[in-house]
Amino acid sequence: MSGKDIENLKKSMKEMVSDSIEKLQNYLRLPTVSAQHKAIPETVEYVVKMIKEIDGEAKVLDDLGGNPVVYGFFKASKQEDSTKTLLFYNHYDVQPPEPLNEWNTDPFEPTIIDGKLYARGVADNKGDLVARLTAIRILQNSEGGLPCNVKFLIEGEEEIGSPHLAPYLEKYRDLFQADACIWEFGGKDVKNRINMVAGIKGMAYMELTSIGADIDMHSSLGAYVDNAAWRLVHALVTMKNNQNEIVVDGFFDGIEEPTESEKQIVSALPFDEEAIKRIYGLKLPLITAAKGVDPRIAMVFYPTMTICGLESGYTGEGAKTVLPKKAKAKIDCRLVPGQDPEHIFECVKKHLKNYGFHDIEVKLINGQKAFRSDYNHPFIDHVIQTAEEVYENEVVLAPNAAGTGPMYIFGEQLKLPIVSTGVGWAESKAHAPNESIRIQDFEDGIVHMAHMLNGFNHALERE
Amino acid sequence: MSGKDIENLKKSMKEMVSDSIEKLQNYLRLPTVSAQHKAIPETVEYVVKMIKEIDGEAKVLDDLGGNPVVYGFFKASKQEDSTKTLLFYNHYDVQPPEPLNEWNTDPFEPTIIDGKLYARGVADNKGDLVARLTAIRILQNSEGGLPCNVKFLIEGEEEIGSPHLAPYLEKYRDLFQADACIWEFGGKDVKNRINMVAGIKGMAYMELTSIGADIDMHSSLGAYVDNAAWRLVHALVTMKNNQNEIVVDGFFDGIEEPTESEKQIVSALPFDEEAIKRIYGLKLPLITAAKGVDPRIAMVFYPTMTICGLESGYTGEGAKTVLPKKAKAKIDCRLVPGQDPEHIFECVKKHLKNYGFHDIEVKLINGQKAFRSDYNHPFIDHVIQTAEEVYENEVVLAPNAAGTGPMYIFGEQLKLPIVSTGVGWAESKAHAPNESIRIQDFEDGIVHMAHMLNGFNHALERE
Repeated sequence: MSGKDIENLKKSMKEMVSDSIEKLQNYLRLPTVSAQHKAIPETVEYVVKMIKEIDGEAKVLDDLGGNPVVYGFFKASKQEDSTKTLLFYNHYDVQPPEPLNEWNTDPFEPTIIDGKLYARGVADNKGDLVARLTAIRILQNSEGGLPCNVKFLIEGEEEIGSPHLAPYLEKYRDLFQADACIWEFGGKDVKNRINMVAGIKGMAYMELTSIGADIDMHSSLGAYVDNAAWRLVHALVTMKNNQNEIVVDGFFDGIEEPTESEKQIVSALPFDEEAIKRIYGLKLPLITAAKGVDPRIAMVFYPTMTICGLESGYTGEGAKTVLPKKAKAKIDCRLVPGQDPEHIFECVKKHLKNYGFHDIEVKLINGQKAFRSDYNHPFIDHVIQTAEEVYENEVVLAPNAAGTGPMYIFGEQLKLPIVSTGVGWAESKAHAPNESIRIQDFEDGIVHMAHMLNGFNHALERE
Repeated sequence: MSGKDIENLKKSMKEMVSDSIEKLQNYLRLPTVSAQHKAIPETVEYVVKMIKEIDGEAKVLDDLGGNPVVYGFFKASKQEDSTKTLLFYNHYDVQPPEPLNEWNTDPFEPTIIDGKLYARGVADNKGDLVARLTAIRILQNSEGGLPCNVKFLIEGEEEIGSPHLAPYLEKYRDLFQADACIWEFGGKDVKNRINMVAGIKGMAYMELTSIGADIDMHSSLGAYVDNAAWRLVHALVTMKNNQNEIVVDGFFDGIEEPTESEKQIVSALPFDEEAIKRIYGLKLPLITAAKGVDPRIAMVFYPTMTICGLESGYTGEGAKTVLPKKAKAKIDCRLVPGQDPEHIFECVKKHLKNYGFHDIEVKLINGQKAFRSDYNHPFIDHVIQTAEEVYENEVVLAPNAAGTGPMYIFGEQLKLPIVSTGVGWAESKAHAPNESIRIQDFEDGIVHMAHMLNGFNHALERE
């Protein structure tokens, strides 16, 4: 692939990008918060419109419950090219924008400041869908046309754990059949290297609720009435001790130990501790430091147990002397290959009973298994190589991400190599206030996807 | 005091009560939430108006900061009666109404249902002020007139711990000088006996904040980034163990052990465990049960440490995979005579440092000392006796309440006997949603206050 081809793609991208950003901004104005059941029908309609506008075929699949799954299809321009098919996985839903008072701009009024576009969902994952569709449009307009078939699976429940994706993928396995898959999203690290992953962690997201009474009480009753909030904190510390060790029996069952070579790959991943501390403003030492563990090893190979939320009683200004009737914790466990979220859920329930916390209800809100793709597939090599050509920088590939997505279901149903890449940057703040992408990364991401598609058939033939 | 006098008072009350309820409803419509700085000036104006309407003298004291203190004065009708003075302590502020979705009616639109008046602050403590003013009006209109001087101290910061009351009482000690004091509020127990107290617990209300980072993070970082919510729960359990024992060094310093006779009085107080479990819908055994402690002993003589609120990260519907930047707990310690809130605050700070929680900030939001009045003063006998005559039921007097108020400051500055009684009932739900009083109790409370004032001079002369 010559530098000239990339130059041509860049030129075409430049002609099209302001129109693309406008489309993206309209897409971002839709407050598609799946956890709050917001703006689903209008977002589905908008996604379908974006596909059809550039001569794609779109189908809305909604016969199996949950928010609809959008199928998109773009046929290769020439008959002889149409044997190979790339699948893009995206989602149109976004995280809740709360806490709203920490946003510098309205989360659903996309705003460009200093070359960055701020909005909820711009990095995770609306920006990537628009970049990918733009790449297709560029190739359709190019001399050679779109060289391969391209499919999209765009779901609307990724941010609530993709509860309906498995049945859709099972029923529509033939529709989504492809030779390789580009996953959801990705981005650059603090040294501006594109970080890709060939796998993903799983998740068991649970809600623990302690209920002490039917109504909130005057706190003077604390002399003899038990307190749901105290029950909850005492239950929590039996699950993860003050050394940050998860101590739930059976939690580590089935974990496939990484090989020495996998550990070596991960230990060699770039990791800038000072930059991470600065970006997030960390006040405490890394929990890996006390144990002499490499944070990269922990990120890829260790499961976690994170308190995502705590709520009980009065949390407003000043003093309200109440003895709360209930207390709630949201707990996110990131899982590694071999762990089963249903098993984790059963272990936590059994653990709490064993410790005498019969009164604490546990709900599994989101369960997903981890997945690792074949690290050495020629498709993955191709995605890396084209990225190095476009970005003119080193690419970093990890066996799996620290984050989660429904990759396991794809791997199991479609049996294809999967790699994740996208238009984010080191400070994209996915899931946090002031989420953003840089316009430059969006432009480069478009060019990378177009360049990658151009060589896709050849790369697959090397298989 | 003959039964005929009480009958006359009841007759006068009946003529006046619908007008009183209307005044009370207008008073309750003012959302005077001191913790949220709401409706202070208009409530002060309304209180002054109520005093002046019935020929009282009113002064607004606001020269020492905080919400104004209202002084009210009613002179004895006949010169020869004007040697003795009763002081009423009330407050015009109310607790926050949250959680709003648990109210069956608008908390600031007083609503009568089945003989009960529902509104925030009706039991604590707006209903009592209106009942007391009505009692004065009845006596003014009676043949004998108002037989003694009556003063009011009505403050606006009781629900946030009366932070400015001490300087006002010190500066205006002469203005508020009196021979005895009827305290804030009270009410009936589940067997409809009037419960009175001659003292009150103290309080150290603290806010603990753990800060881990400048921004909320993606929860996948939990593999190596420390978590403010985990820090906070681990810190909390070092303060009160899973046996509900407070284990902060120095917490119990200075406590004056109750005498055997005090313990006997308290053990003989009525206590209906089944009724309490039913009213609040308790799901858990009393914490005193495991230790074989009498709940009455705990209520009066044991200090507490209650989690009033917990807040961290995402607490909305469904799953948000966030690693929270901070976590907050509100802790209310009810104190007994001899404990010092400032000392408790210092002990908690030192405790957390000793356990390695240097990162947790502690703020003392409200500190008050406990107080016990002279249990055997003739004034207290008089209040009890007149109540028994009006209510035709036994009266229960405890050495001190389980609740808190600024009684210590009164006792120290004014040196007078204090007893608390009022128009609440067993399900008044002070500080909780659906706060209420029963109209019948409001009526009886007016008659009791009028009857008590009628014999006040004589009772004091017995001193």
